[in-house]
Amino acid sequence: MADLFPVDVYDRRLTRAAELCREEGLAGLIIGTGPELAYLTGSWVSSHERLTVLVIPAEGRPVLLAPATDIGDLERSALPHLDVVVRGWVDGDDAHAWAAAVLDHGPVALGSSLTTVHVLRLQELLDAPTLPAATTLKELFMRKDPAEIEELALAAAAIDRVHERVPALLRPGRTEAAVAADLSALILKEHDVVDFVIVGSGPNGANPHHSHSGRELVTGDVVVVDVGGTRGPGYHSDSTRTYVVGGPGEASREVRNAYRVLQDAHGAALAQARPGVTAASVDAAAREVIEEAGLGEYFIHRTGHGIGLSTHEEPYIMAGNGLVLEPGMCFSIEPGIYLPGKWGMRLEDIVVVTDTGAESLTRQERELR
Amino acid sequence: MADLFPVDVYDRRLTRAAELCREEGLAGLIIGTGPELAYLTGSWVSSHERLTVLVIPAEGRPVLLAPATDIGDLERSALPHLDVVVRGWVDGDDAHAWAAAVLDHGPVALGSSLTTVHVLRLQELLDAPTLPAATTLKELFMRKDPAEIEELALAAAAIDRVHERVPALLRPGRTEAAVAADLSALILKEHDVVDFVIVGSGPNGANPHHSHSGRELVTGDVVVVDVGGTRGPGYHSDSTRTYVVGGPGEASREVRNAYRVLQDAHGAALAQARPGVTAASVDAAAREVIEEAGLGEYFIHRTGHGIGLSTHEEPYIMAGNGLVLEPGMCFSIEPGIYLPGKWGMRLEDIVVVTDTGAESLTRQERELR
Repeated sequence: MADLFPVDVYDRRLTRAAELCREEGLAGLIIGTGPELAYLTGSWVSSHERLTVLVIPAEGRPVLLAPATDIGDLERSALPHLDVVVRGWVDGDDAHAWAAAVLDHGPVALGSSLTTVHVLRLQELLDAPTLPAATTLKELFMRKDPAEIEELALAAAAIDRVHERVPALLRPGRTEAAVAADLSALILKEHDVVDFVIVGSGPNGANPHHSHSGRELVTGDVVVVDVGGTRGPGYHSDSTRTYVVGGPGEASREVRNAYRVLQDAHGAALAQARPGVTAASVDAAAREVIEEAGLGEYFIHRTGHGIGLSTHEEPYIMAGNGLVLEPGMCFSIEPGIYLPGKWGMRLEDIVVVTDTGAESLTRQERELR
Repeated sequence: MADLFPVDVYDRRLTRAAELCREEGLAGLIIGTGPELAYLTGSWVSSHERLTVLVIPAEGRPVLLAPATDIGDLERSALPHLDVVVRGWVDGDDAHAWAAAVLDHGPVALGSSLTTVHVLRLQELLDAPTLPAATTLKELFMRKDPAEIEELALAAAAIDRVHERVPALLRPGRTEAAVAADLSALILKEHDVVDFVIVGSGPNGANPHHSHSGRELVTGDVVVVDVGGTRGPGYHSDSTRTYVVGGPGEASREVRNAYRVLQDAHGAALAQARPGVTAASVDAAAREVIEEAGLGEYFIHRTGHGIGLSTHEEPYIMAGNGLVLEPGMCFSIEPGIYLPGKWGMRLEDIVVVTDTGAESLTRQERELR
């Protein structure tokens, strides 16, 4: 994931982040490692429990603090070409105090990936109100620009090619784990990193977060296959299809009927997604279809999640989320129906909001296979 | 990593955690997912950005809150057999408020893995001082019991078997990445999960956090190989050896001399490690040897880190850490020497503090190979 966007992309993002601080009356941002840092600098550096932060003051040059041993890794990011001060710290230095000292007095927004020890120590040193940076960066993060959408489309095409190979893998007598191992290899051929592999056959499919197990496939099994990886500058893929071992002809009438409901729910959500409507309304569109079919109690999760440099991010497509959709937002639409002890099914695509509606980036056929 | 200790192990740990809260005058603990939750309940459940917490009040039954969709995963942990209330939440529920409501008024210790959004939201709801739970749980986490030491010894033996196969992989013309791919497969044969694979050849070895690259090996290259994985109930391995492509006879005199210093530094740290001395003194023992040889400026990181259910945890073997070692503490001893642009070398073992000294759990030979 050493791919980078041109330097001016990061320059613009950093400038906009400082602008947002001024608009919101913040002293600045303290961003930890992970997607937010990658978004702003192209760096996926990780320093485990040791503090690495990008401090963006409302006024003045941003400062990146990292353990001296990790400074070398920053060469692969856009940082050497950005107007950012880079400082390495060694054991004995108080890196948290250095971070706090970059900012004038006033509220400070803390990056999403910072963990308890760092948050509490920074709060102690800042002696100012702290807020989640996710709120400040929402505008930047959620509306993907054309280059980002292109990367998400490439990731979607990559995972489409993985799903194309799934039917051949689902042979009776094979274990979920064996299928998952093959899928990991296929994902890796198309991506830089395997994010997750779910192979939920028969009753295991009824647990939406089942990973895989030693269960052997049997003809007629309904199998949920949910796979994702990371490629390019760090953009994720994520797509689910539901298969039947031996082919759709082996599925019971109950399964085929439910799957038709699922396709309709998926279609209703996609039709609802457009600029100006709420995330909650997209969730409701899918949910109503499943409820009308009398299966509402078996759709036990939200309809979708945003995706980009992280697999799960805003906008969350769920009840209660009044967030209004805008062009450039990318998220999953993934209704599911789960009959405990029997089977599960889910249909998941990644879509981007356009000027007039929404378009699916993943394009594998949506039939039961 | 579905292996579990007997249920009474977790029972005792939960009881002791509540006792520690009472001793420290805390209202209780709020523990997120990850090693701390695994330590207390055997569960490695992960719910991404959604809140999963174990709330342990100073008095009364602990409560585990998780998204309803993840409750099924808890079956594989000790939770069904523990005196813990398990509650699932769905979108629209205020799970943070549920967590806060379990605790009486008073200071609350927050688990290490909680991230910014959760920490800030809990602080808002608790309206009480918050502290890092890591401090409270230190005693429990750092002193490994015999069953934990046995697991760490099994992990150490597993990574020893991986190192045994390294010399055959380091052939001239192969890339670091190709060697790393082979190492991943070998680690996976001996563990459940690959944690990391570092193959730092020639100048790349001088960056202690280099992962691997397309660089091709050349006869005489010094190569740092640092590998680790996870097995059993989630215990980690971590071991580094330094190799020379073509065998130690191909190493320059400079390299051979430096390696002798490295071995002496490693030996000095191991000899220093025993109950009653500080973590800092173990770091100093290694550092003095390297400094006396005039190479001090090239030993650019701490001497070691604790290991257990996480790869990096207390005790950190570093300058300034006045923590006094006790029997049962497990950590790495891993001095290194890094000549920028030329080569790096590191020698890393996992050791356990005994009643009278320290014993190495990893046992691969410590010569340049």
